Amino acid sequence: MFSTVKDMSIESTLISKERKNAKFPVEEMTNIWDGGKEETELRRKIVKLFEDDPVLKSPPICTMTREERFTKATRKSAYIYRNLIPNNGLHPGSREFEHFSRAMPVENNLLVHMIAFIPCIKSFGSQEQVAKWLPLALNLNIIGAYAQTELGHGSFLRGIETEATFDKKTQEFVINCPKVSSMKWWPGDMGLNANHALVMANLIIDGKEYGMHAFIVQIRDLSTHMPLPGVTVGDIGNKLGFEETDNGFLYMKNVRIPRENLLNQNSEVKPDGTYVKKASDRLTYGSMVNLRANFATHVINLLAKACTIAIRYSAVRRQGILEPGGAEVPVLDYTLQQHKLIPSLALVYASYFAGVAMKKKYKIFAKNMAKGNLSDLAEIHALSASFKAIVTDQCTSGVEVCRRACGGHGYSQASGLPFLLCKITPSCTYEGENTVLYLQTARYLVKCASKQAADLPESIAFLVQPIQDMKGSITSLDNLIICFKNSAALCVQGVSKKVNEMSNKGLAMHEVWNKSSVQLVKSAKMYVMQYIIGAFASFVKEVKCSEPIKEILQDLCCLYGLHYINTHSGEFLKLGVLSAHHCTLAEETEIQLLEKLRPNAVGIVDAFDFTDLSLESCLGTYDGNVYERLFDMAKLSPLNKEKVHQESYRHLRPFLLEGRDILEGVKSKN
Amino acid sequence: MFSTVKDMSIESTLISKERKNAKFPVEEMTNIWDGGKEETELRRKIVKLFEDDPVLKSPPICTMTREERFTKATRKSAYIYRNLIPNNGLHPGSREFEHFSRAMPVENNLLVHMIAFIPCIKSFGSQEQVAKWLPLALNLNIIGAYAQTELGHGSFLRGIETEATFDKKTQEFVINCPKVSSMKWWPGDMGLNANHALVMANLIIDGKEYGMHAFIVQIRDLSTHMPLPGVTVGDIGNKLGFEETDNGFLYMKNVRIPRENLLNQNSEVKPDGTYVKKASDRLTYGSMVNLRANFATHVINLLAKACTIAIRYSAVRRQGILEPGGAEVPVLDYTLQQHKLIPSLALVYASYFAGVAMKKKYKIFAKNMAKGNLSDLAEIHALSASFKAIVTDQCTSGVEVCRRACGGHGYSQASGLPFLLCKITPSCTYEGENTVLYLQTARYLVKCASKQAADLPESIAFLVQPIQDMKGSITSLDNLIICFKNSAALCVQGVSKKVNEMSNKGLAMHEVWNKSSVQLVKSAKMYVMQYIIGAFASFVKEVKCSEPIKEILQDLCCLYGLHYINTHSGEFLKLGVLSAHHCTLAEETEIQLLEKLRPNAVGIVDAFDFTDLSLESCLGTYDGNVYERLFDMAKLSPLNKEKVHQESYRHLRPFLLEGRDILEGVKSKN
Repeated sequence: MFSTVKDMSIESTLISKERKNAKFPVEEMTNIWDGGKEETELRRKIVKLFEDDPVLKSPPICTMTREERFTKATRKSAYIYRNLIPNNGLHPGSREFEHFSRAMPVENNLLVHMIAFIPCIKSFGSQEQVAKWLPLALNLNIIGAYAQTELGHGSFLRGIETEATFDKKTQEFVINCPKVSSMKWWPGDMGLNANHALVMANLIIDGKEYGMHAFIVQIRDLSTHMPLPGVTVGDIGNKLGFEETDNGFLYMKNVRIPRENLLNQNSEVKPDGTYVKKASDRLTYGSMVNLRANFATHVINLLAKACTIAIRYSAVRRQGILEPGGAEVPVLDYTLQQHKLIPSLALVYASYFAGVAMKKKYKIFAKNMAKGNLSDLAEIHALSASFKAIVTDQCTSGVEVCRRACGGHGYSQASGLPFLLCKITPSCTYEGENTVLYLQTARYLVKCASKQAADLPESIAFLVQPIQDMKGSITSLDNLIICFKNSAALCVQGVSKKVNEMSNKGLAMHEVWNKSSVQLVKSAKMYVMQYIIGAFASFVKEVKCSEPIKEILQDLCCLYGLHYINTHSGEFLKLGVLSAHHCTLAEETEIQLLEKLRPNAVGIVDAFDFTDLSLESCLGTYDGNVYERLFDMAKLSPLNKEKVHQESYRHLRPFLLEGRDILEGVKSKN
Repeated sequence: MFSTVKDMSIESTLISKERKNAKFPVEEMTNIWDGGKEETELRRKIVKLFEDDPVLKSPPICTMTREERFTKATRKSAYIYRNLIPNNGLHPGSREFEHFSRAMPVENNLLVHMIAFIPCIKSFGSQEQVAKWLPLALNLNIIGAYAQTELGHGSFLRGIETEATFDKKTQEFVINCPKVSSMKWWPGDMGLNANHALVMANLIIDGKEYGMHAFIVQIRDLSTHMPLPGVTVGDIGNKLGFEETDNGFLYMKNVRIPRENLLNQNSEVKPDGTYVKKASDRLTYGSMVNLRANFATHVINLLAKACTIAIRYSAVRRQGILEPGGAEVPVLDYTLQQHKLIPSLALVYASYFAGVAMKKKYKIFAKNMAKGNLSDLAEIHALSASFKAIVTDQCTSGVEVCRRACGGHGYSQASGLPFLLCKITPSCTYEGENTVLYLQTARYLVKCASKQAADLPESIAFLVQPIQDMKGSITSLDNLIICFKNSAALCVQGVSKKVNEMSNKGLAMHEVWNKSSVQLVKSAKMYVMQYIIGAFASFVKEVKCSEPIKEILQDLCCLYGLHYINTHSGEFLKLGVLSAHHCTLAEETEIQLLEKLRPNAVGIVDAFDFTDLSLESCLGTYDGNVYERLFDMAKLSPLNKEKVHQESYRHLRPFLLEGRDILEGVKSKN
């Protein structure tokens, strides 16, 4: 509809220049990121398979309505799980399968079915049950939601109100939501696509409550997909993020399911109503740790995308002059812009490699667990809880920093940044609300603080050991690690002391915890920060790579630590771990690191190796032609279908015609 | 479509109890907020007028598509400006008119026409031009966009590329966007509704550039509303926030306008091409100050709404137990929840009353300006720039804190919170990007730091005067003010010293500014913080009110200061203004203030006096019936039109039917 606008792009020249100036082998960094050269190749193969598939093509997300997005996401997912995956031999558990998250379309559905419904069948079901339900679920012969959260209950699981009452006569469980607030609310895929739900409900036998258990409940007719009698189910409406998904509500009134639909790996109800406990529920906690580490990888990926977009754009967006009389400069030349974007990049690296370390830790734990050794459960639970919380918090802030660093265009859906923000933000709330998670970690740490080092896991013992001395420059990586370790120890000890004092004064424990909660959260954060910086530093020390890469990784690791110190200097000063002089040095060093890393910034984001298709961003494409892409995308706005938007215009038309008469009258008078 | 779910609401009982426990007269607080009893009555009258009008009724925003929202917003605005306002004698400038922002529908269009196009005609136009265009614009006989920002240029005005070349022969200006990046981009109302634009362009006469000038350019046909020849105009596509508005692009190629369409209050082009400068452009800066203060009020209003929603919801949302064996408690009883929400409330108060003070300051300035006295321009410009920046930054963070404090439901559009977030966030970027504004203020402050107190405006002189001593408790209001003043002075002096040192070492000035920019921003923030806390404290001291109200206001003022200290303690410690001991006291006092204010929290948000209709939130309604409202709203989700979403289902149907066959086969085997 629009006349063509032709233009030579200075932007593509600018970004090519950035690439020429990068001082390290980008491909080698990509290999490190992927875990090896072969992994990079494999990942690229998978990504290509997805991106070249004509069935998976669809219009840009930013031009679609929510309803279109929902339908498209369902279509794509059905195709991927039933055609693309089996036809290409990509079996779950295979190495190829691990590269999925990079290859999957930006929007897809049936995710909760895949990552919650299916794993929970495995976690909670007996062998027999798994044999029955798992193949059905994997083939999309049934689609299941994980129905735990209720309208009135989230984090506090004991508060869940849905009831499953055993009816001996019919050998059925009768599922009921006693109140409006007890209906299931939020589960993904549940509103429209699922025909089954794994319902968490209070088991009641002969009037006695046995607490939360998992039940498989059919909610829609297998032939017509209509809701079954007693079932009220639907989409909960529009949301911030995950617009493509049918997060649902599910109200159940006297819905009857056979006795066999209680998933009974850990506990069973006999036909006569006898309740039998078979195994500890603690075992199922273990798998949460792995889920959280994998989930962190996904979240970090979103920030890596935001960094790619913002840094590439900042390299081509020119604004203002630095030198009097000079040309306009790319905004990436401004220290303040570097101060926004490069620490976000450091955050991606630190969280990612700490996540890799956490997965290794989990593998060891899983081996022990398989032998019945659960001794590390509390430690690994505390670590993974605070890790999930801080990574989602920091990466969410990071995406928002990247988005705002793009000025006006960061608000445009065509930039891809609002999409990333809306995709990442909910991670602060789902899979454990962050504040709740920090508190869980902190309570564990306070318990540890009253023990002897010898009685504590190796990774925790430093909390009760003597403070270490820093030698040499505060800004060296070794000293940064000591600085965070000391701070974490002093922080936990400080709050533990406060808790004891208050409790000794006779304050009830629940009040003590409540009154200390602000400090408890701080101590959990400092604890997990020392873990992240320590894990990243260990990786950097051990990784085999070329010198320029090693240097960049070291700089990113220092920057991660220094940026945190500089934005939280009060914590370190109050604990006496750093002096005001140290802080000044830390600030100066951060600025120096920004300057040093700046020429490599575009190279570092290139190393993430996102395809243009996976970024879905007019600002982030590899070639830097941002303005032409924005214009092309704007033309696709649904509001531009006609040159005059008649629906809107008709409300203005009478007044504008009056205006025409006045203006043309004026003209004829002249 | 759904069966009815009946329920007695515990939530409404809980919120009534909160109201009974409030220890101050809520109505008196409302009057203070409005500026007097009569103002409250007047505001309520206006709000009622709008809310009772059947023409302004429309479905909830969260159930509409963007296109529906756009059309509805245009319809409402056309009706308001052409019918409701004139029919009720609500003339611009009247007292009634000031209450508009509270009465206007949550979504409306033609806002840029009203608050930018019209004022700019007044600011830039000659008397004759104002006489011609103003009545047309006020009656919506023409609709105008304010076309300044370009695809490739925002904050750096000198970079604007659109050209207006004078053609002596035809006595016309020829408007051209030389490149894709020079097309106008972002202006509200411009894409579809406007038929005129106030275009900022470089004036060129006989090959010589005269810099930016304002031109009125007709862009659409007065009869058909079709784009004129040479004009390519449309909607830029979907955005984060302001979905109802047609932010547009405008590409002009050889668009000719008569010579009279250069708005010539300050400068003129004679028929022979002579350029005449008539007045300083500095005069037009003055009006920006007022715009920013009014605009801050609007932004603060959004946070006040978010606080109302989050605090009411937190009073009825029960989660977890505090006392062992006790009942579930409202989440507002948790210190961490108070720590999120009550400082946000303090922020609303502090920013609001500082804004009131700023408007008073502007009135005095405007009087002086009318007499040709522009001596306060630099000071008031620096103050208003950093005030705009910090208020939008802090209020945006505040809305996000409120939203996340509502857990999962804070992501639901039905909560109203995502809408508020998307509405407030862009304020950090439009009307001056915040980072740029802080830098402008900081540069002014650094200049001041090299002068004598006697040569500085009264409000700035403290920067170069001796540091004041704090006497008594650090947490008293008087000492908090001293603490912020001292910190601002030391901060500005510190960065000034650094700037001088670097420049003395021979570093080029542009490098000096760039390298100091992180600290420059910090000093601007500290400067404006001392202004805000000082202005709010003065208001609290002077306001005539009952004792309980006075106490609440004092507590909120202290809380505002203490919360900033506690979240930025490093700044104060590094400057040596506070000791670690002071900081511990500040933390403890904040927790005490939270406890003290908590029983009044619902009352304080009630005092904002938002109607349920103006909040558009299922979580924030006055009666506390959150769950029933969420359920009612979910039923309206467009995806629930049919019990089976056929479009999505057809992609799953073949697999689910396979599942039916397997499951029914299994059943018959049993």
